[in-house]
Amino acid sequence: MMASTRRNFHLGDAVAVLERTPSSLSALLEGLPETWVRATEGDGTWSPYDVIGHLIEAERVNWMPRARHILEAGPTRPFEPFARAVGESGSRSLAEQLATFGRLRRENVAALKAMNLTDGDLERRGRHPELGDVTLGQLLATWVVHDMDHVTQIARTMAKVYTDATGPWNVYLSVLRDRLR
Amino acid sequence: MMASTRRNFHLGDAVAVLERTPSSLSALLEGLPETWVRATEGDGTWSPYDVIGHLIEAERVNWMPRARHILEAGPTRPFEPFARAVGESGSRSLAEQLATFGRLRRENVAALKAMNLTDGDLERRGRHPELGDVTLGQLLATWVVHDMDHVTQIARTMAKVYTDATGPWNVYLSVLRDRLR
Repeated sequence: MMASTRRNFHLGDAVAVLERTPSSLSALLEGLPETWVRATEGDGTWSPYDVIGHLIEAERVNWMPRARHILEAGPTRPFEPFARAVGESGSRSLAEQLATFGRLRRENVAALKAMNLTDGDLERRGRHPELGDVTLGQLLATWVVHDMDHVTQIARTMAKVYTDATGPWNVYLSVLRDRLR
Repeated sequence: MMASTRRNFHLGDAVAVLERTPSSLSALLEGLPETWVRATEGDGTWSPYDVIGHLIEAERVNWMPRARHILEAGPTRPFEPFARAVGESGSRSLAEQLATFGRLRRENVAALKAMNLTDGDLERRGRHPELGDVTLGQLLATWVVHDMDHVTQIARTMAKVYTDATGPWNVYLSVLRDRLR
């Protein structure tokens, strides 16, 4: 076993994850009782329903708009700040939200592939309003990690619903102690 | 928002999660490049491939065998210890392993439903070799949380592949610091 499996960014590998996230989350969440869909980790934390709204918002205003900004404007002006908040989901059902996330992701991955990015393009720079200079490759790697961060958040939030219900077994279930507030 | 969304065990809610985990993991993992499937968090940690082997082993020797043990023997003798290790997967492909997990889970959920458990049954006790007295309801709640624990593990392990690739953005991506070793 390798001591570390950290990798450099690879567009094909990244796309393979990006195109699987919506179907994985739909398979996990669609049709689940509200007990799970509306659970949170406590005040000020997000439910699985909220997380899907956030992922939709990021598809709309974050990833591909910033990728285009890097290719068109470079670091001459910073990105628009991205509010890391829940998008307006109003009264839409979870099934509708999951379908919207899936559709936007398909459109965005198709647009990303159509850019035919070269290794040189992945080194092109933009200016983040807080973080300073970043590359297009770093943006796209962040898109992947952001997906996985929110998959962990959803599964962790669901797990914690049964923190008490597991009784003595909770000592074996490390997820119940992740991000304890 | 509620301060807490912890719930008592509810059989229908639990089954709803248990029957979705295999398809969610198949949608996430099937066909992914080895970069993701064989990634680990470092020496002594599991890859997504290893985790699927562990989930298969638990379907075979842990959950339903212990549920039957509680109903048949009660706390008169302890459960067989369950080695929390990776099952023998040999050279099987990830697709084969995911199919096996899905099949075993379907069989186990069908057997669970066929038990027609009452609220009284859920209070029935068994003896865990390390934890002492536990109830059937606690066992079944643990099954659900164990699923979600390993979903977080898989997504976290995949995220960490791009720890360096995200560059300055890593400060926003909390999952990269979960379970740091």
